[in-house]
Amino acid sequence: MPQINIDRIEQDIIAISKFGFNEADRGVYRQGFTPEDMAARKWLSDTFEALGMDHRMDGAGNVIGRFGPADKPAIMIASHLDSVPAGGIFDGVLGVVAGLEVVRTLKENGVEPEFPIEIIGTSEEEGRFGGMLGAQAITGHLTHDWLDTAKDERGLALKDAMAEAGLNAQDALHAYRRPEEIHAFLELHVEQGPVLDTEKTTIGIVEGISGVFKWNCRLMGKADHAGTAPMNMRSDALMGMVDFAHEIQRIIDEEGTDKSRITIGHVALKPGFPHTVPGEADFTIVGRDLDEDVMKALSDACRRVLSSIARKHKLKFEYEEMSWLKPAYCDRSLMDLIESKTQELDYSYKIMPSGAGHDVQFFCNHTKAALIFVPSVNGVSHAPDEWTHWSDIERGAQLLFECVLDLAGSKAASEAPTAVNAD
Amino acid sequence: MPQINIDRIEQDIIAISKFGFNEADRGVYRQGFTPEDMAARKWLSDTFEALGMDHRMDGAGNVIGRFGPADKPAIMIASHLDSVPAGGIFDGVLGVVAGLEVVRTLKENGVEPEFPIEIIGTSEEEGRFGGMLGAQAITGHLTHDWLDTAKDERGLALKDAMAEAGLNAQDALHAYRRPEEIHAFLELHVEQGPVLDTEKTTIGIVEGISGVFKWNCRLMGKADHAGTAPMNMRSDALMGMVDFAHEIQRIIDEEGTDKSRITIGHVALKPGFPHTVPGEADFTIVGRDLDEDVMKALSDACRRVLSSIARKHKLKFEYEEMSWLKPAYCDRSLMDLIESKTQELDYSYKIMPSGAGHDVQFFCNHTKAALIFVPSVNGVSHAPDEWTHWSDIERGAQLLFECVLDLAGSKAASEAPTAVNAD
Repeated sequence: MPQINIDRIEQDIIAISKFGFNEADRGVYRQGFTPEDMAARKWLSDTFEALGMDHRMDGAGNVIGRFGPADKPAIMIASHLDSVPAGGIFDGVLGVVAGLEVVRTLKENGVEPEFPIEIIGTSEEEGRFGGMLGAQAITGHLTHDWLDTAKDERGLALKDAMAEAGLNAQDALHAYRRPEEIHAFLELHVEQGPVLDTEKTTIGIVEGISGVFKWNCRLMGKADHAGTAPMNMRSDALMGMVDFAHEIQRIIDEEGTDKSRITIGHVALKPGFPHTVPGEADFTIVGRDLDEDVMKALSDACRRVLSSIARKHKLKFEYEEMSWLKPAYCDRSLMDLIESKTQELDYSYKIMPSGAGHDVQFFCNHTKAALIFVPSVNGVSHAPDEWTHWSDIERGAQLLFECVLDLAGSKAASEAPTAVNAD
Repeated sequence: MPQINIDRIEQDIIAISKFGFNEADRGVYRQGFTPEDMAARKWLSDTFEALGMDHRMDGAGNVIGRFGPADKPAIMIASHLDSVPAGGIFDGVLGVVAGLEVVRTLKENGVEPEFPIEIIGTSEEEGRFGGMLGAQAITGHLTHDWLDTAKDERGLALKDAMAEAGLNAQDALHAYRRPEEIHAFLELHVEQGPVLDTEKTTIGIVEGISGVFKWNCRLMGKADHAGTAPMNMRSDALMGMVDFAHEIQRIIDEEGTDKSRITIGHVALKPGFPHTVPGEADFTIVGRDLDEDVMKALSDACRRVLSSIARKHKLKFEYEEMSWLKPAYCDRSLMDLIESKTQELDYSYKIMPSGAGHDVQFFCNHTKAALIFVPSVNGVSHAPDEWTHWSDIERGAQLLFECVLDLAGSKAASEAPTAVNAD
């Protein structure tokens, strides 16, 4: 079995990390369609060129390199090249660079795949303009109006940012790829959570992207002087929020699964003075699960518990559901392939949900799609100290290679039915 | 027994409410040493003049009118003329106007008191520069350095604000009155809390001003992605705060009294994003009781509970004690006098602590001092809809009058040993 070369992967990751690297905080600043992002895309095009691959940038800014026959549906290996502000060097980049190494390894071993392989560096995944723009373009989720009106948080229009980068926003609608053009979609990504690292497990086989709901909640009581209002005569909005937060674990125990998450990430009190009983508590609830029925049970329970607590504390309760994103499921046959290859390689692995969103989720209902995780040290991501051990990256890339080899149906793959255990 | 005239009190309160009244929000804006505040002080001087009283403004901006003999210690009837921004019309003003009515009633009944009566409109009670400046000046709590360096929240120096008002800040040190110059100190004030109104009680006889401690607390955990971090792998700083808040009532039940208050009025989460587990929770704790030993027991319990919760949630806990103000006790003999006069008048009453600070607290360790409360409708104060029924004000002022008459030892008082029940 051909072996990928971790040194080349390391060189590529370090090379891309230079685009937008900030010496002061050691973070990467490569937000979608910035000059730094476009420079990284140029690097990828140049690398495709050097590898002798057909390549192009589509209307959404996705950079696509292709290796293999022109008349068959492609095996896409994709992830994003952009970063959050002050991000790490692996997030997104790993999935693109691993794809490059897969093609290099195929080429140096003289493998000619039956199905073509496309390496895609997707655009604007991280959310400067909402996120996953490249993936949405390819899978047909964008609209004319949205492209015309989307803005970043500073108020800069997407179409102006794209024009600055040499792109016409409406051309993103030409990036659509029909399902029959795609044989399979594979993404390799760092976990960005603590599970694999904590459990000393090398590979995460992702069964799906958790659905997520976001609520803006408001509890309204009465702002009183913290000295003159006896404890039993208060309508303390914060204490209502506190009573709810205290029930979160019970709600999950009763209504959820081990994949459920409920988080209060933002709290604002009014008036927010130390000597005043809070008259109003505004806070967010973000809930997740891999099963939409469980999401519904969790959100029903949140509503029930908040209503009951509001009555008890003499508070008024309002909430607004800001979003409800359904779960997206990875393809079972691809998961089985990945699992069998992982077992052949004798890598430790875990079947798990992804709590974070990834490009793959837009491909889940469009084609056969799968996502492979490698561990994030201490679960850190979106931060300068994001790290993944090179030996874990080596295993993730070797697994990706062997899965692609299997899917591509090459002569080389059929000649080596019993793979050598490389672990 | 002479009867005070509620119509004149109403006229005076309405007259003073015009200084700083804001038509837009119907609130009073008469912060210390503003032109509006100084205009109200001018009104008080003019009113003293019209009543034929000796009067002056001392170096701290207190406006003092005196009625009675020059060679004896004074019965001070005092409260403040300044307001919070968007305040109500009774807070402070009532105690001054009631004093005016006491003197008017004495005069129209031809009473010549043995002890002189001083009506004082104190300055800067509400805290533009820290609060209770006038009361601190009279009782000797100010320092040269503080007067030279104090600033309001916009950075304007006290000495500049006072100069603008025609005062020299250092002259506040000349406002000191020796204990032997004061026979007694009486303040009539609206409760600013819900107790009397809720219990349908007319008079609050205040036994003391609760001591208060303020802590700035910080719980530090780890900011994680709200989707990728399983519930049991989080160090959620907010959940530590929530667990503590949930124990507040138990802490009071076990360590406190019915006069204890513990309030979390301010909370700030970092990073404070809906999709991020809070890595840090900064919050305030304000605790009160009328007994300093109970305050110590409450604060010890808060520290113990927070330390234990921090360990349980894998958080780091820090706190800083920003202030520790001891309780101040009203004079028992004055309280007894007020109680007996209240009983003679057949007014309903309650002996209670004051959770809010008042001018009186600086007189408690300086002379015999007492504080009388009348009800605040719905407990509202420091707001445009602050209200006290005129009939409650009438009773409060009549009670004040009869107490002053007793303390002043006049001929009229001795002629009427059995007061007519005016309720």
